[in-house]
Amino acid sequence: MDQLHVLPFIPVLEIIGTFVFAISGTLTAAEKKLDPFGASVIAFVTALGGGTVRDLLLNLRPVWIQEERYLLTVFISVVVAVLFRKQINRLRRTLFLFDTAGIALFTILGMEKALRIGVPPIIALVMGVVSAVFGGVVRDILCNEIPLIFRREVYATACLTGGGAYLLMRLAPLPEGVPVAVAIGIIILIRILAVRLHWAFPNLRSEE
Amino acid sequence: MDQLHVLPFIPVLEIIGTFVFAISGTLTAAEKKLDPFGASVIAFVTALGGGTVRDLLLNLRPVWIQEERYLLTVFISVVVAVLFRKQINRLRRTLFLFDTAGIALFTILGMEKALRIGVPPIIALVMGVVSAVFGGVVRDILCNEIPLIFRREVYATACLTGGGAYLLMRLAPLPEGVPVAVAIGIIILIRILAVRLHWAFPNLRSEE
Amino acid sequence: MDQLHVLPFIPVLEIIGTFVFAISGTLTAAEKKLDPFGASVIAFVTALGGGTVRDLLLNLRPVWIQEERYLLTVFISVVVAVLFRKQINRLRRTLFLFDTAGIALFTILGMEKALRIGVPPIIALVMGVVSAVFGGVVRDILCNEIPLIFRREVYATACLTGGGAYLLMRLAPLPEGVPVAVAIGIIILIRILAVRLHWAFPNLRSEE
Repeated sequence: MDQLHVLPFIPVLEIIGTFVFAISGTLTAAEKKLDPFGASVIAFVTALGGGTVRDLLLNLRPVWIQEERYLLTVFISVVVAVLFRKQINRLRRTLFLFDTAGIALFTILGMEKALRIGVPPIIALVMGVVSAVFGGVVRDILCNEIPLIFRREVYATACLTGGGAYLLMRLAPLPEGVPVAVAIGIIILIRILAVRLHWAFPNLRSEE
Repeated sequence: MDQLHVLPFIPVLEIIGTFVFAISGTLTAAEKKLDPFGASVIAFVTALGGGTVRDLLLNLRPVWIQEERYLLTVFISVVVAVLFRKQINRLRRTLFLFDTAGIALFTILGMEKALRIGVPPIIALVMGVVSAVFGGVVRDILCNEIPLIFRREVYATACLTGGGAYLLMRLAPLPEGVPVAVAIGIIILIRILAVRLHWAFPNLRSEE
Repeated sequence: MDQLHVLPFIPVLEIIGTFVFAISGTLTAAEKKLDPFGASVIAFVTALGGGTVRDLLLNLRPVWIQEERYLLTVFISVVVAVLFRKQINRLRRTLFLFDTAGIALFTILGMEKALRIGVPPIIALVMGVVSAVFGGVVRDILCNEIPLIFRREVYATACLTGGGAYLLMRLAPLPEGVPVAVAIGIIILIRILAVRLHWAFPNLRSEE
């Protein structure tokens, strides 16, 4: 389980993150004119795909295989997203904040999971980013598009920066909970600034 | 191994299912103008991809890694499909029946495999559907299309319904073999009716 | 680890192979107008994706999860490819030779890894080919194209032929190191001849 004992509210956040990611997955599926089954698969993949890819790479059985609450959360999200689509579209700003918090949380939880089974820190950082962003990558592959993340990477850079800071803070004698909280704050801050200020790396072709 | 002792003819059906799925994969590859190597990969993925995804998620080594007969079956299917393409195209109705029986069988076998390693029933149902339909999903991804199943989901709904009935029947004191036979019958029946009567869920966009 | 004790220089070759594959992945990403993060992912997948798919199928944890040097090699490759793109484009012939040597090496190393954990020879051959070519397949899927390999398969046929020869030579009382060297030579030779002489299988559609 992905629980850091220092932060007892994390399981709740994790379910909220799953819920928000699944909502955004369902909205994407609706734009692609998928039917309810397709939308459920896309919602599932968006919410749980990143953690699943991480667990497959770490040779672990994904958590959602053992506990029904993740699957149930996705199912409820799909029903909510289909029934209240118009209202949700008006809440886009709130959704973005939850989504960003979810990304930040999944990055740190993914790193912790990898570190705890003895993976080297730099690889654990990659596993954290995979947890946070690969759900979206698999969703885009299933929807037959070049993954968005590859063309708008500030998203992943925020995770890398926050995750890197987390690794450094773990080496320092900080009070329990501080590295997690600061790292999550860094990721959220960078992503919000990036969207507000339209940060983006130039694509490779344009350098020529 | 995927053998239910109550139904000793299942290994044979499993090979027939693999054969039929591989035939249909080869025909798809031919339409995409792939070469013989590409066609073999697509045939393989169509026939064994669903079970492979299920086994990766369950953290098991896929059966075809340990036993050559699955690979051999796919290879023979490709040769047969390439040599007798015209004749096979005339047998489309028969192929459809075999394909449907294969889907039904793979659903129940996939569920049993998951249940036997202690996966919760509702997740086992998902694993059954994954076994039956993800071969086609991976095939469509490789062929660079939005997976057909996401836009025509009665296919998956049949598996979900039959699989759900199987879970319920397992709780009742029915004679050995009855749940398997009835569940497979339900899946085949729904799929045939769905195709005959043109059942389809509306896509999400059209609701607006 | 993928080390054949008879050939102590293999770990070095393996890193060179990873380096060359990552360079070619970065150049592909640049053509797709990806940004630096996307290019790094594509480079990584091109270099390490084949071995990763093989390890997932064998239910092993991929080597790059445990040792940082693979990830570091990919990172250096991306920096080198971005900084020296023009010079690298002039070295295409040399790159092709390295790339071919890498494919040959990865085929045999992949087979050895599978054989050592008791996989049947014919499946080990498939695992060798997967190691060598699936990095390119996953790269093409991420870039939203039908994998090149499915339409130009002499590449995979070279691996199958050399790998098959390796299996036969392992049965004969040959001096240590001879099967590896001969099999790698066969793969390189077939691929060079195929490119020089424009060998290609007809695609399936054109037979009609």
